Amino acid sequence: MGGLSYRDAGVDIDKKMAAVGGIGALVRSTFTPGVLHELGSFGGMFSGRFEGLEDPILVATNDGVGTKVRAGVKAGRVRGLGQDIVNHCVDDILVQGAEPLFFLDYFASSVLEPAVFNEVIEGIAIACKEAGAALLGGETAEMPGVYQPGEFDIVGCIVGVVDRSKVWPRGVKAGDALIGVRSDGLHTNGFSLVNRLIERDELDLDVDPGPLGESLGDALLRPHRSYLPAIRALRTQVDIHGLAHITGGGLQDNLPRVLPEGVGAEVDRGAWTPNKVFSWLVETAGMDHDESYHVFNMGCALVVIVDESEADKTIATLTAAGEEAWRIGGLVEGAGVTFTA
Amino acid sequence: MGGLSYRDAGVDIDKKMAAVGGIGALVRSTFTPGVLHELGSFGGMFSGRFEGLEDPILVATNDGVGTKVRAGVKAGRVRGLGQDIVNHCVDDILVQGAEPLFFLDYFASSVLEPAVFNEVIEGIAIACKEAGAALLGGETAEMPGVYQPGEFDIVGCIVGVVDRSKVWPRGVKAGDALIGVRSDGLHTNGFSLVNRLIERDELDLDVDPGPLGESLGDALLRPHRSYLPAIRALRTQVDIHGLAHITGGGLQDNLPRVLPEGVGAEVDRGAWTPNKVFSWLVETAGMDHDESYHVFNMGCALVVIVDESEADKTIATLTAAGEEAWRIGGLVEGAGVTFTA
Repeated sequence: MGGLSYRDAGVDIDKKMAAVGGIGALVRSTFTPGVLHELGSFGGMFSGRFEGLEDPILVATNDGVGTKVRAGVKAGRVRGLGQDIVNHCVDDILVQGAEPLFFLDYFASSVLEPAVFNEVIEGIAIACKEAGAALLGGETAEMPGVYQPGEFDIVGCIVGVVDRSKVWPRGVKAGDALIGVRSDGLHTNGFSLVNRLIERDELDLDVDPGPLGESLGDALLRPHRSYLPAIRALRTQVDIHGLAHITGGGLQDNLPRVLPEGVGAEVDRGAWTPNKVFSWLVETAGMDHDESYHVFNMGCALVVIVDESEADKTIATLTAAGEEAWRIGGLVEGAGVTFTA
Repeated sequence: MGGLSYRDAGVDIDKKMAAVGGIGALVRSTFTPGVLHELGSFGGMFSGRFEGLEDPILVATNDGVGTKVRAGVKAGRVRGLGQDIVNHCVDDILVQGAEPLFFLDYFASSVLEPAVFNEVIEGIAIACKEAGAALLGGETAEMPGVYQPGEFDIVGCIVGVVDRSKVWPRGVKAGDALIGVRSDGLHTNGFSLVNRLIERDELDLDVDPGPLGESLGDALLRPHRSYLPAIRALRTQVDIHGLAHITGGGLQDNLPRVLPEGVGAEVDRGAWTPNKVFSWLVETAGMDHDESYHVFNMGCALVVIVDESEADKTIATLTAAGEEAWRIGGLVEGAGVTFTA
């Protein structure tokens, strides 16, 4: 019986090192003054001095992009998935008021395909630069037998900082107005269902299935929107009480996460029109109306909570910042989310 | 054609919520005074005030446990994998001098098996408590079609802090002594080869293949050792110049990461005896001697670099702290690692 080398077992250390080594310039392009990489080796290093903050609080989250990776692989376009994971994380800490400091990525597949890996990292670097988050570290894993052939997973971890007095939610109360902000499509939620539909109906991602005005792949794979620029602008103009990032579980599961005990939300789903891709998905899948709002963001991936008196100014400021925003309801005494349409 | 519900598509939101909700007590058991969870919602929150540090530097890393997950699944023992991912991360930032602050986990599989998930999280919580790292957040993903049935992946991200004047390496120079510290086995490296062997030879993980004195599963799956307690003790006694965590790529790839330009290492591989599991693996796989030290830690997963004059005291202090340590070589003018045996 012959010897079994590590390469025979499906892991090529040299190839991995070459692929990872090639992304050095991309990674460095994201570096901000906080990065202390001249000191670093095993772990990434970042300054823990937060000038100008009285009582800094670190805010951290990690997540994946779910089975959106499958649709990306199927369409042969994976750069957007890199932007997805970063922007999703950026928005998740933004709702607590945090400015991004740094991001770390994890990319795993059965066998490393350097071209695919590089495209994902390009997307990550683009979004990190836009957010001002340094790409401080990352890991690439080859896991034969764990991942399906050709598939991969992307995981991101972000750390941001906010002064304690600036943490959201603060001051959320019955009577406040709810302002919804347009999403760029599905972002990263609902793709297990989407993938099943693609398979069931043998959908071609390169063509417009009819009403979209773009290819199905374009509509489905558009990267997660970062609300950071708009909220940076808004917070200078308006006393934001709270923000909710609408992800898996929809409005009904995510909005209550920022409501105090005894406060519920009333949301008029007629206040905005879902992006065309949602209407098409719901019809094609034969989905129940309520379930669609539990699975998808249905066109509204951020909810801004402000005092009733600042509702109009909030919409105007968000609009000026390039967002599409609507008054979608308000807070009342109660609990959970009630849909009035 | 009937409607397609999200549950039909392989994702059961309610089941996921129930499984994730059940780990609340475990997660809270890891909380340290830095955790500001009463404020948190979408992201975990941790104090960014580092009392007593003059110039705090955050050190962050993320990683997985590689295909050790497959061996764990095969043996039906996954708790140790939770300890693996935490301790691996702890050691990765320890070598730069950092004390852990918090940890975030990501657990993904084709279909969530709550019992497996809970066992992994138990392991994570155990190791977090031991390290004093708060389990600040985490994500659980069901990704039908991405992961092979029954397999899963675990990813961890850790953030620690160190004062700038205490960062390692500092003062590493030719003439310094290299002290190796015993590993608890493979830790998380080399499992793609191990899994191939298990398959090729239809190995039974519940029995001792001969020379191990324990079952193969026990030997292979023993969790990653945390060197944090020992190094906490050592740093009060000795001026540590540098630490190298020996992971994938072995001594030859990891030791040079902490050596300055113009300094190389001479390592006597005869200075210690690899754990029995390594000798058995090398023989069973018919592996080349040099390659085995490139793939596995071969019994030495931490190298401590100290002044020649402190070598004996280092070994004595590590021994008193419960470690097995040996003089394995020294630093010379040059580059890379030269093996003298």
